Amino acid sequence: MSKKRILSGMQPSGLLHLGNYFGALKNWVSLQDEYECFYFIADWHSLTTLYENPGQIKQFTREVAIDWLAAGLDPEKCTLFVQSRIPEHTELHLILSMIVPVSWLERNPTYKEKQQEVKNVDMSSYGFLGYPVLQTADIVLYNAHYVPVGIDQAPHLELSREIVRRFQHFYKKKVLIEPEAKISEVPKLNGIDGRKMSKSYNNAIYLADSEKEITKKIRAMLTDPQRLRREDPGDPDVCNLYPFHKLFSSEEKQAYVNENCRTAGIGCGDCKALLAESLLAGMRPLMERRQQLAAKPKEVDEILHEGTAKARKVAQATMHKVKEAMKLI
Amino acid sequence: MSKKRILSGMQPSGLLHLGNYFGALKNWVSLQDEYECFYFIADWHSLTTLYENPGQIKQFTREVAIDWLAAGLDPEKCTLFVQSRIPEHTELHLILSMIVPVSWLERNPTYKEKQQEVKNVDMSSYGFLGYPVLQTADIVLYNAHYVPVGIDQAPHLELSREIVRRFQHFYKKKVLIEPEAKISEVPKLNGIDGRKMSKSYNNAIYLADSEKEITKKIRAMLTDPQRLRREDPGDPDVCNLYPFHKLFSSEEKQAYVNENCRTAGIGCGDCKALLAESLLAGMRPLMERRQQLAAKPKEVDEILHEGTAKARKVAQATMHKVKEAMKLI
Ligand code: SF4
Ligand code: SF4
Repeated sequence: MSKKRILSGMQPSGLLHLGNYFGALKNWVSLQDEYECFYFIADWHSLTTLYENPGQIKQFTREVAIDWLAAGLDPEKCTLFVQSRIPEHTELHLILSMIVPVSWLERNPTYKEKQQEVKNVDMSSYGFLGYPVLQTADIVLYNAHYVPVGIDQAPHLELSREIVRRFQHFYKKKVLIEPEAKISEVPKLNGIDGRKMSKSYNNAIYLADSEKEITKKIRAMLTDPQRLRREDPGDPDVCNLYPFHKLFSSEEKQAYVNENCRTAGIGCGDCKALLAESLLAGMRPLMERRQQLAAKPKEVDEILHEGTAKARKVAQATMHKVKEAMKLI
Repeated sequence: MSKKRILSGMQPSGLLHLGNYFGALKNWVSLQDEYECFYFIADWHSLTTLYENPGQIKQFTREVAIDWLAAGLDPEKCTLFVQSRIPEHTELHLILSMIVPVSWLERNPTYKEKQQEVKNVDMSSYGFLGYPVLQTADIVLYNAHYVPVGIDQAPHLELSREIVRRFQHFYKKKVLIEPEAKISEVPKLNGIDGRKMSKSYNNAIYLADSEKEITKKIRAMLTDPQRLRREDPGDPDVCNLYPFHKLFSSEEKQAYVNENCRTAGIGCGDCKALLAESLLAGMRPLMERRQQLAAKPKEVDEILHEGTAKARKVAQATMHKVKEAMKLI
């Protein structure tokens, strides 16, 4: 039996950070053996926020691909491609736009949420209202069975499923697959200031950071805000730094930190030094791969080029079936 | 100096009738000598109303092309093409959708108008809300200077001009041309029942009708509703049929009808016979060309094929400039 297919994408709106890595990318890597995975650089989607200044998209397309490959995505196992280079995305987007009621998009909870979240950009565009339509086109073009999502994002996919059902209802043919959410547990990991790790908050640790930069960022990290002096005991359970130990340090080290934090046996400075050691040890292989890849941009571009050619064949075959079902051809 | 460029399109949602001919097509023919004209079959646009039953679009794409050629559009002089076969339309549509505020589309007067006009189809789709975005993409892809419109449609174009100005404002390059309305006078011509001539009212005289069908339709035409009996005088100024005389009959015949209607010198039956004679004489050359073309569908398809290839080169060059201006490439 052939493997089930997975589709997911990331916007090329910046370098990837540890939040992206543990929130999605690490999971993508683990999925590539069991599933036929299609991962794409969602450059059209990044226009929803970067439309006033899209110049960076080109650069970050390559940087994100480097992050992916450094993290362990293997182009022999999965298909890595660039959304905007496959015209079938915009074509199916237009077709689906004709069958999606505006009200479905207006009631989409993430629409208003994100409009409130993004402060410095006017998010009132027609394209942003319609991003679930494009997202649906992205998914169904590749007949994806599953879309990996965090538990809070499962509702997004419900809209795609509704759109697929409406398509089948009108055109009486099951040419599109109703995608299912593949929910994965995501560890909680904030930025160095305790807010959500995000490029726009300037609080992120990037996969592309040097050891020096990482060490400096760890030193600047917010810890237990109640632990004002060295001799005060701390509480790892409310500390912004401790979740990093959970991801990077050995059980022994975690136990040591946990105990000595609560008894003031170690200071936060000591704790940060311990974390820097574990985190750098854990990230070093990825960081080294990243450096090697960054030195060979042509090879990275070629991987995207080949992946895109492979993906396009699948997209074209789907569009053919879509147009047949609609009797357009 | 090179000729200025004109762009216009028609939806392949049915056969063309005399309303389409005198309302637009005749004008298109007269423009083809003075301008470089691009005329397209707007099949994506026809999905805004035909999305539940798009099977007829394919058939009417060819029929409309036959109507065009029969009416005198000359593929040596103008470029005739099919919108959906040029992927740059959907691509530029998506890009423009990112810079168009939803509010611009919601306040578009024709949006609500048409939602009220079209009764039997649910016009609440995201795609219908965005049809001016697609329309703008259609126009600017071909660097059109002018879009021929009836006087009441001039506001449509203002939205396209606003979108172009917003593009130039964001990307600081004048790669797109702000299209201007080329307003033409359109003779008033209703359907045989006195309502607007329209396929959906079943009151149209088609370019593809046979002489027999046309004669029958003229016989069934509504005339001056006050002229109940043969001996009542009539009033050509309020008669639904008289405008057809103005288009098809000689000045002498018009004067004769005008006078003898008002004096009850002729009956409406006589008047209809006179019109049938003039109308058929006027339309015969077109009708004969249409029959010849309908017998050679492969040649018609080939004309569309060649026109589409020619148009695509222009569209590709524009997309290249658009992406350069946005620094996407
Ligand atoms: S010692 Fe470590 S775990 Fe405890 S508050 Fe400081 S940084 Fe956090
Ligand atoms: S005679 Fe002719 S113009 Fe007069 S009312 Fe009858 S149809 Fe109309």
